[in-house]
Amino acid sequence: MRILVVNSGSSSLKFQFFDMEQESSLASGKVERIGMKGAILSYKRADGKKIKQVKEILDHTTAIDVALKTLMDKESGVIKELSEIDAVGHRVVHGGEELTHSVLIDDKILETIKDCIELAPLHNPHNIKGIQATQRLLPGVPQIAVFDTAFHHTIPDYAYMYALPYILYERYKIRRYGFHGTSHRYVAYRVARILKKPVDEINIISIHLGNGSSICAVQRGKSIDTSMGFTPVEGLVMGTRSGDIDPAIVPFIMAQEELAISQINTLLNKHSGLWGLSGISSDDREIEEAYENGNDRARLAIEVAAYRIKKYIGAYSASMGGVDVIVFTAGIGENSPRMRRLALRDMEYLGIKIDEEKNESIIKGKEGEISTPYSKVKVFVIPTNEELVIARDTANIVSFLR
Amino acid sequence: MRILVVNSGSSSLKFQFFDMEQESSLASGKVERIGMKGAILSYKRADGKKIKQVKEILDHTTAIDVALKTLMDKESGVIKELSEIDAVGHRVVHGGEELTHSVLIDDKILETIKDCIELAPLHNPHNIKGIQATQRLLPGVPQIAVFDTAFHHTIPDYAYMYALPYILYERYKIRRYGFHGTSHRYVAYRVARILKKPVDEINIISIHLGNGSSICAVQRGKSIDTSMGFTPVEGLVMGTRSGDIDPAIVPFIMAQEELAISQINTLLNKHSGLWGLSGISSDDREIEEAYENGNDRARLAIEVAAYRIKKYIGAYSASMGGVDVIVFTAGIGENSPRMRRLALRDMEYLGIKIDEEKNESIIKGKEGEISTPYSKVKVFVIPTNEELVIARDTANIVSFLR
Repeated sequence: MRILVVNSGSSSLKFQFFDMEQESSLASGKVERIGMKGAILSYKRADGKKIKQVKEILDHTTAIDVALKTLMDKESGVIKELSEIDAVGHRVVHGGEELTHSVLIDDKILETIKDCIELAPLHNPHNIKGIQATQRLLPGVPQIAVFDTAFHHTIPDYAYMYALPYILYERYKIRRYGFHGTSHRYVAYRVARILKKPVDEINIISIHLGNGSSICAVQRGKSIDTSMGFTPVEGLVMGTRSGDIDPAIVPFIMAQEELAISQINTLLNKHSGLWGLSGISSDDREIEEAYENGNDRARLAIEVAAYRIKKYIGAYSASMGGVDVIVFTAGIGENSPRMRRLALRDMEYLGIKIDEEKNESIIKGKEGEISTPYSKVKVFVIPTNEELVIARDTANIVSFLR
Repeated sequence: MRILVVNSGSSSLKFQFFDMEQESSLASGKVERIGMKGAILSYKRADGKKIKQVKEILDHTTAIDVALKTLMDKESGVIKELSEIDAVGHRVVHGGEELTHSVLIDDKILETIKDCIELAPLHNPHNIKGIQATQRLLPGVPQIAVFDTAFHHTIPDYAYMYALPYILYERYKIRRYGFHGTSHRYVAYRVARILKKPVDEINIISIHLGNGSSICAVQRGKSIDTSMGFTPVEGLVMGTRSGDIDPAIVPFIMAQEELAISQINTLLNKHSGLWGLSGISSDDREIEEAYENGNDRARLAIEVAAYRIKKYIGAYSASMGGVDVIVFTAGIGENSPRMRRLALRDMEYLGIKIDEEKNESIIKGKEGEISTPYSKVKVFVIPTNEELVIARDTANIVSFLR
């Protein structure tokens, strides 16, 4: 079975094409600056053959069309005709309370995804555009939706409810949803496989540190808590997002700075996090470099971020009644030995012992253990692969259809 | 030395009179409904002799005057003349970044307390009224200020900084301050005494559960983190305050419900917490009763509150690299075996083992251990005594003056 995975954002569209026999990626690419002057297509085939083009790509339908034509390109393509695409898997950010599993998209499902727009106004509309464009260009090909929120549907009510007036839950469904579900699911199952243990016999803390970051308590294979909440602002310190703050700071800032609602949202989403604290960059690598050169605001940003991770590791150990395995993943999780070291510093009380040499050596997409053989809690770095999860779910659902 | 302790709120004023030879409270009282129709004075002498009167008390000066006259009352009083009051200790909520220890109040200190009004608009103005009234009525008597925030001045920057634009810290001093400092300090030092260990050899988690609730990581006698932050809204679930939520919920609610800044503040401070979740009461006892009668919203409120405590215990264990002692204090902490049990459920991984019988038996102001002899982490219930801490600090400073 051959599956196209589509991740459609506001002005970008990523795609990857899988052969599910070997679970191998045949090609991947992305279209950036959709609707802007000089959209860019970049594409890479598994053998290394590349395409990079500047084009006029005004909408998501054209972007999908370009992606499909590229996959069929005589020089660089991987298929001859569209009928070689057996199914399409779409990343959809928000499934709300209804869509708790990956699902075949029909009119009713599409309506439900539309109902979640209010919960994810920055993401779901663009995910829907990608689905509709693909439906138009690949009629009759099964389309599957895989939700960022779905893995977290097992979180119990005492962990997903906020202590706000209950009517706000009834009226607007304000509760913790959590995101990065496909990533947390991938690394949790992957680490169980590495350990040769059933996932439902281990308690895992999965730490996804990318541009957006979240941490998840995976108890016996199920998410029982996660740091992102109603929106992706809550929780860890991120590139430009604040993560946890005293909620009363929000009206305080609005009053002092005379900010409108859209402006405080921009402040929390775009001007905070590592960037707000350091004043240097939203990119962890640049901040770590400044830290090494003695910049104190850089030190502060890194330490605040690491300390937040440490507290969540402690909190989720308590949530699960103990932890067996900790996994770091995504950009910073896979590439920053310093962030991993600082987050796990002085955690011997939990049985965590890091092998500093191993920690330093596992970067740039490598997978491996960074704890010592005597560490009661095993610590791993596992490169995430959300596209593969989407492809697997898609293959799985399609095989049931047949 | 005999010391008057004054806790002056917006419409109430509490006072307590100590003989510091024995650290004994000779009498205590409060004036409620200051400035309203029918203010109420209640007073109790150590021997049980009581006064309850409805009076016209229009301002804080009159309230202090009434308190002083009551202490000199021929029937129920404890002193003959005002000169028997050696010093006055005032509870002051916010000391900002400057006032990090209890201090003798002079004009400069009073100005600094006024500078903190912006940080605690609901509290500091009334604390100041109490100080000024006392200065007027007891001229020449040393007045000492004891700050709720002071104990937390040892929190390191990576724990007190929020990941917000740094300019907001520079411009408005937006950072974590923490409150309930005198309470956390009292129980931490008290438990060290009970254990006959120097406080600087133990890591304590102090859990103050009252109408307002907060939790504090006391590492070797010093606060290194606490759950209340810039304001008393952050952290645990309280009677009517939300505690931690996704900060992006604030602008979301404001937009959906078209709320003004003052209204969202009221929502977070007065309509949330146990009250918002349960819809029954802000009083834990009434909610626990409803829970026992099968009310599911009551169950939810209690479980959300308990789970939040549990997560903080985990988080602060991580902050300190392990925990030796956990202490519950204040109204709910001293009186709810259920809340204590739920918060500590499934914490054997940390070495916490609760003796259920002991837990059930320690209520109503009793002090004692509720963990089993085999519990690696000792768990205590210790009735708080903020007034005594204020009296001690006052006595201490005054004795240096002499």
